[in-house]
Amino acid sequence: MVDISAYFVAGGDRRIAELAAMLAADGHTVSTYALCTTQTYSSLRQAAQGARYAILPLPLADGDYLNAASGNACTIEELFEAIKGCEIVFAGKVGKKEERLARKLSINLLDYYSREDLQVANAIPTAEGAIELAMRELPVTIWGSDVLVVGYGRVGRILADRLKALGAVVTVAARRSSERVWAEAYGCRAVSVDELAFEIPGMKLVINTVPAQIIGENALRSANPETLFIDLASKPGGIDKKAAQSRGLRIIHALSLPGNVASVTSAAIIKKTIYNMLSEQHIE
Amino acid sequence: MVDISAYFVAGGDRRIAELAAMLAADGHTVSTYALCTTQTYSSLRQAAQGARYAILPLPLADGDYLNAASGNACTIEELFEAIKGCEIVFAGKVGKKEERLARKLSINLLDYYSREDLQVANAIPTAEGAIELAMRELPVTIWGSDVLVVGYGRVGRILADRLKALGAVVTVAARRSSERVWAEAYGCRAVSVDELAFEIPGMKLVINTVPAQIIGENALRSANPETLFIDLASKPGGIDKKAAQSRGLRIIHALSLPGNVASVTSAAIIKKTIYNMLSEQHIE
Amino acid sequence: MVDISAYFVAGGDRRIAELAAMLAADGHTVSTYALCTTQTYSSLRQAAQGARYAILPLPLADGDYLNAASGNACTIEELFEAIKGCEIVFAGKVGKKEERLARKLSINLLDYYSREDLQVANAIPTAEGAIELAMRELPVTIWGSDVLVVGYGRVGRILADRLKALGAVVTVAARRSSERVWAEAYGCRAVSVDELAFEIPGMKLVINTVPAQIIGENALRSANPETLFIDLASKPGGIDKKAAQSRGLRIIHALSLPGNVASVTSAAIIKKTIYNMLSEQHIE
Amino acid sequence: MVDISAYFVAGGDRRIAELAAMLAADGHTVSTYALCTTQTYSSLRQAAQGARYAILPLPLADGDYLNAASGNACTIEELFEAIKGCEIVFAGKVGKKEERLARKLSINLLDYYSREDLQVANAIPTAEGAIELAMRELPVTIWGSDVLVVGYGRVGRILADRLKALGAVVTVAARRSSERVWAEAYGCRAVSVDELAFEIPGMKLVINTVPAQIIGENALRSANPETLFIDLASKPGGIDKKAAQSRGLRIIHALSLPGNVASVTSAAIIKKTIYNMLSEQHIE
Repeated sequence: MVDISAYFVAGGDRRIAELAAMLAADGHTVSTYALCTTQTYSSLRQAAQGARYAILPLPLADGDYLNAASGNACTIEELFEAIKGCEIVFAGKVGKKEERLARKLSINLLDYYSREDLQVANAIPTAEGAIELAMRELPVTIWGSDVLVVGYGRVGRILADRLKALGAVVTVAARRSSERVWAEAYGCRAVSVDELAFEIPGMKLVINTVPAQIIGENALRSANPETLFIDLASKPGGIDKKAAQSRGLRIIHALSLPGNVASVTSAAIIKKTIYNMLSEQHIE
Repeated sequence: MVDISAYFVAGGDRRIAELAAMLAADGHTVSTYALCTTQTYSSLRQAAQGARYAILPLPLADGDYLNAASGNACTIEELFEAIKGCEIVFAGKVGKKEERLARKLSINLLDYYSREDLQVANAIPTAEGAIELAMRELPVTIWGSDVLVVGYGRVGRILADRLKALGAVVTVAARRSSERVWAEAYGCRAVSVDELAFEIPGMKLVINTVPAQIIGENALRSANPETLFIDLASKPGGIDKKAAQSRGLRIIHALSLPGNVASVTSAAIIKKTIYNMLSEQHIE
Repeated sequence: MVDISAYFVAGGDRRIAELAAMLAADGHTVSTYALCTTQTYSSLRQAAQGARYAILPLPLADGDYLNAASGNACTIEELFEAIKGCEIVFAGKVGKKEERLARKLSINLLDYYSREDLQVANAIPTAEGAIELAMRELPVTIWGSDVLVVGYGRVGRILADRLKALGAVVTVAARRSSERVWAEAYGCRAVSVDELAFEIPGMKLVINTVPAQIIGENALRSANPETLFIDLASKPGGIDKKAAQSRGLRIIHALSLPGNVASVTSAAIIKKTIYNMLSEQHIE
Repeated sequence: MVDISAYFVAGGDRRIAELAAMLAADGHTVSTYALCTTQTYSSLRQAAQGARYAILPLPLADGDYLNAASGNACTIEELFEAIKGCEIVFAGKVGKKEERLARKLSINLLDYYSREDLQVANAIPTAEGAIELAMRELPVTIWGSDVLVVGYGRVGRILADRLKALGAVVTVAARRSSERVWAEAYGCRAVSVDELAFEIPGMKLVINTVPAQIIGENALRSANPETLFIDLASKPGGIDKKAAQSRGLRIIHALSLPGNVASVTSAAIIKKTIYNMLSEQHIE
């Protein structure tokens, strides 16, 4: 289904290194540059030469440089010059500046991180990472524990499903009534976000998935010091850290779980997304 | 949370009669007209008098008349004249004609059937009705059977979840790659709709949820005469009936499952949706 | 793994007829007598001649006769005379009288119905049959309903698991504390059988799996007339019918579900059990 | 239901200290000796005086001494002399020597660890502990991974259920055909233990729960170096460590998971078991 092609893969963390290996295992020709597993970098131009597709890391850039284990592998500009002959360049979390540069050089730059299929798939390792964390930190089993999941988007849904399957008593707090019905259809209790202040005190574990400060001072007012809070929302997170600390609450802000807890699965997710993008390109 | 009010409830099937009883049990004053459980109708005007809210059936109309067990209870026009003093009139599947008439009479007419929360909730009895049907018709258990669910919207999701929980080996066919990832995240196999013709022959049960003719002559070409097909999509359904019949396949077109298989749950769903609508009105 | 052999299959309901067809599909030589699908019987001796294994129905006998659709196909004595040369004779629910006769004729008669593996497997169609019945009879969905499962043996376990997966709120009543812990480990609420009288009034559905009159007059005292009772225990069942009827309660005594609701699966279960028995014979 | 009584609680790890706190929270009078949370020990006789019940740790003894954080709190003999007036003495994993001594002193010594209800309940934190370990050690998610669970007793059942719920593809290896049917009824694939050598190479994770060397040199012959092995069986475990090491396989021998990963839940399990034992005593 997927044609055998020449790929250039550069930068990033272990995920990107795994991805390069997987592409090679699928039969593609793969040349790499500045992977986190390589100590010395050979020539960028030489590595990029002749590649049909380039795969760049997530996020793409670290300031003006390619995001790479050794920070100064090359600038985005040097990189783009080297790969401007590629048919498609795939990268994750592309910034405005990189987008402009790509346009200027007529590079067909696609952001795999903005894809719905990748985001859904990433919710799986994120949920598992949060559960591993909770298992490690709590002196009780997930089974039989009262758990509050705040938000019922991608991560909230998978997380609530897994926690329930492990035997937790799961309450979902969601803004929209249709999301609450979904949560109930999947066997959870559902409450409105207005009820957070009433719900939090009875919980062993509260996991926030909403990228907006939804658990503020008021919601934390009667929180139990034994409750564990895990915040999965990207910085600054959805829990008011200052209010929490002033009350002596335990909060863990867990970010970038997919790459950290399951690098091989995360690499496979990026690979599958890129294959999906390629097959859609060919249809169009 | 919900204020005690005077409701006028009219027409419809058993669901609407159950709904009237539930509203009364919640403490509201309820007057009714032309319920399916009443033999003789008292005066429409008298029944509607003084009501703050009116609840009308799903669908609202049967031609020019109110949808009621005895078809000629009253015309929509007579009905609307009688309830035009209500603060809000709730009805299901409101047609253009009824909408226009409501506007003309300055009636605040809201369609509960168009609500996402009701549609999600209705997917639950729909899925159970489909499973009951499959259990009755198949000489094998759901457990261990290969089942194909076509479409992964509201009904497809709940259905796939329940079938899997009963031990079926569930494959989901969906158009979008993100829907396929969702299906996989919830433990199903997922295929593209292009693969229907390859998948159908190995299945014991195929359930369509897509309201567009997605299972056509080509997809049915190699179908097994022992496979049971259930079509849940509203008329004309998503399976080519003519092609299926010419091949001697067993198709059941199952419609209106919620009201038929679980009238009390369906009434509760409508009630909860109306309460949601009221609480949103009061916020605005 | 299983050698190709000559089987003689006789009597019984659709399951046994399906079983004969499955054995043939596996490559064995199959001769049959008095299956429920045959109208006229050929010679018993001729059919049995040369068979290595004989498979007889479940139950084996109907009084002095072979259990068969047409009641007087042959006596057990005539049958045993015809098959006494078989290496092994498999039958279900063998009575004392038949056992004695087999011993007298030096027939190696094994009862497949007494096998733990068959009993566990049969619990699956039994549970599905009970759920189909409940879905048909209740005006509410299984989802969201309070259900009491009495007994936590084979059928009770599978049933509780499936009901929970469909979204019921499941309470298990069991005598032994370890069984109650099992029920809790699998996500159910568990109560002692002493608490039946307190639990029953709040339930939409009560399913008994215990073959002893466990739900007596006292337990039914405050039962709700809207509660559906399903008794899966073999006659006389575990619910006091007289007490129930005098209170106007709805009871369904559902027996022999596997053969009735899923004849093909039931045939496959018997076949697999017989293959297991054969492979154990060969090991010894 | 449980009478308010005077308890003496001594020795052990965090579980026993938590248990003492829980008994006090339930309203009992609790005196303690040599808990792991106390630095200095007051008089043993004084603490034990007047107690109706004594609760001793799991295991009870460490050589001739009470199992306690500071090893030489007191000898078993001193301890038994101090508590011989108690109505019942509860202890875990009681050895022959302690049993003899109790008999000599006419102490009614009951072993809570030998109870089926405690063993089932302990399987829950054991399963969660194994899953936490697997999540931490594997570079892939549990979701989508092929996992082999060897043994289908208490821990095997709960573990297989949880892994499947997290989205693993679970195969169960069990000796008895009825156990394999149970595994299939709960949605797993099942194989005989004779097939271990064929199954192991395709697995990402193999978890042994059988306390006998079941995974020997032969079964490990073609094992994949990327497969993670977790052995939950008590020493010496069920996996041939020497054979595994000579092949460079990764094995984790995880013991005493309940107390280590979920001390509060484990304390609650012991408490509930003791309450069950008391209520059974009172019935007799």
